[in-house]
Amino acid sequence: MKSRAVVLVSRPHGVAQAENFAIREAELGVLPEGHVRVRNAFLSVDPAMRGWIADRGNYSAPVEIGSVMRSLAVGEVSESKVPEFRPGEIVTGWFGWQEFADVAPSSVVRRVKETDLPYSLALGVLGINGVTALVGLETIGEPRPGETVLVSTAAGAVGSAVGQIAKILGCRAVGIAGGSEKARTCRELFGYDAAIDYRGPGLAEALAAACPDGVNVYFDNTSGAISDAVWPRLAVGGRVVICGTASFSSWDPWPNGPRLERHLLVKRARAQGFVVFDYADRWEASVAKLADWVRAGKLRYSEDVLDGIEACPDALAGLYRGENRGTRLIRITK
Amino acid sequence: MKSRAVVLVSRPHGVAQAENFAIREAELGVLPEGHVRVRNAFLSVDPAMRGWIADRGNYSAPVEIGSVMRSLAVGEVSESKVPEFRPGEIVTGWFGWQEFADVAPSSVVRRVKETDLPYSLALGVLGINGVTALVGLETIGEPRPGETVLVSTAAGAVGSAVGQIAKILGCRAVGIAGGSEKARTCRELFGYDAAIDYRGPGLAEALAAACPDGVNVYFDNTSGAISDAVWPRLAVGGRVVICGTASFSSWDPWPNGPRLERHLLVKRARAQGFVVFDYADRWEASVAKLADWVRAGKLRYSEDVLDGIEACPDALAGLYRGENRGTRLIRITK
Repeated sequence: MKSRAVVLVSRPHGVAQAENFAIREAELGVLPEGHVRVRNAFLSVDPAMRGWIADRGNYSAPVEIGSVMRSLAVGEVSESKVPEFRPGEIVTGWFGWQEFADVAPSSVVRRVKETDLPYSLALGVLGINGVTALVGLETIGEPRPGETVLVSTAAGAVGSAVGQIAKILGCRAVGIAGGSEKARTCRELFGYDAAIDYRGPGLAEALAAACPDGVNVYFDNTSGAISDAVWPRLAVGGRVVICGTASFSSWDPWPNGPRLERHLLVKRARAQGFVVFDYADRWEASVAKLADWVRAGKLRYSEDVLDGIEACPDALAGLYRGENRGTRLIRITK
Repeated sequence: MKSRAVVLVSRPHGVAQAENFAIREAELGVLPEGHVRVRNAFLSVDPAMRGWIADRGNYSAPVEIGSVMRSLAVGEVSESKVPEFRPGEIVTGWFGWQEFADVAPSSVVRRVKETDLPYSLALGVLGINGVTALVGLETIGEPRPGETVLVSTAAGAVGSAVGQIAKILGCRAVGIAGGSEKARTCRELFGYDAAIDYRGPGLAEALAAACPDGVNVYFDNTSGAISDAVWPRLAVGGRVVICGTASFSSWDPWPNGPRLERHLLVKRARAQGFVVFDYADRWEASVAKLADWVRAGKLRYSEDVLDGIEACPDALAGLYRGENRGTRLIRITK
């Protein structure tokens, strides 16, 4: 039996394009001892991938040229040479952009227990995105009922969960999204109290109107001009979750912006970088909480599914072109 | 009996100069009921005063034109019409730049209990500066033994205490100061493990050499070019205490600099603004701890005493000219 894989063939400067990848097909060999063979059902396409293949230091080890693109995936165990896993189990983990993955058990992040819900959710609202939203908001944002939580990329995979969780926790949720359609999605699908199209005129004025008492928690996925408009609106004691910097496709040269130190001092505010992989101990409890909210209809999600491994090479660049509507996934098995 | 006071007569753009103040003399009237009359011994000259008289929003209410310049001071109760205070007691509080202050008890910050030590310490290492150093370091810096604590304005009133407290807590202390003389003072008087003259060549290289394992805690009193060299050296999980922005004499127009968001994210670092007045509940215990360290010879200090109320109007501008050597104070009574 053959398996296809997407391999990194050159290192991009900035966002990876289709030509930085190649699809390689190979015969599946004998599964090595101590390994599990996973037949991938869905592959993840995540903004963080830009960092994993960037040409400069980052918070993860780089993907090497010639190796399969690193990715979270969800699939079914098709063969096992370890006692912990049996064929037929649904697992999610670091299985890469490929049809079949032969991996050590340490690459399995977790067994999917929520098999009453679609498997793809393991890569979205019950996976890295949902857990990022919940744990980032809980540990750094520390929102209190009645406070205003502002979210950039508010219609995105992480942002939409942040906004809804803020509402569940009794906060006022305000979103910033690119385009009037996404802003409408924020209000109508995800239940934000207000949503602002940052491409429209008067972002600063719109923020002032939507956050009359200031911003208690800013969940920042963008940096850049959006954040520059938000910082002056921070309330005293505000908390800023630095979760992503989607406004910039490259930090070489390093971009300048209005200095944050005075905002931090005058508002006695706190800003902290958040990388979900530092919080492995909170993963299971967080997924269980998120799954309960999904079942109760309190936590909605939006998926943008591309079909077949052929869709992988251009999928990441497409994210940065803003073409997706919801969490981008690649479906491998029907 | 007459008393002289320093009054704010015009609002500066940037740092207040001597001409923004005037000295007014008036006959001391009858002490009003419910008030205490304090004969000031020492007046404080503090970098934070720039903010109190700035022409834009700040974290304190502005000093009004025509009123006595706000200042901490230490002095002796000369007359009292409240039961809590008796003549002869030594008190510190918001007594302003004047020889005699008639104040309500709420203006008294504390009774000076450490009367075995010089009274002037209530305005320095046992006052706002020492408490800022200790509480800022404890609550935001959270240094652990063996970590590297880096301090800007390392020879200053706050910075010199931060460096020494870091050593007392078992950390490695590295200072940044302006000029080779101040750097030497850091090493020889205050016991820093290393001190860097930021005016010398190669600040980034000097920081790399002095902090080979990165910076775990950065106690930032400056912002600006000094901080720009520090942020790339932050260790993973680093904490930045934003305590002052002495590099800038004005934030209008707002200065730009290298964006912090990516540093915060990649290093999972935290930056938080610190204003000591938010921590009134920690004041007494902090002063007691600092006084014990002073008595034990573990916490040294340096004072820069100017004589007489005539020295007040130019004293703040002088701080920003960098002319002081130690905590600047005005001595009123011998």
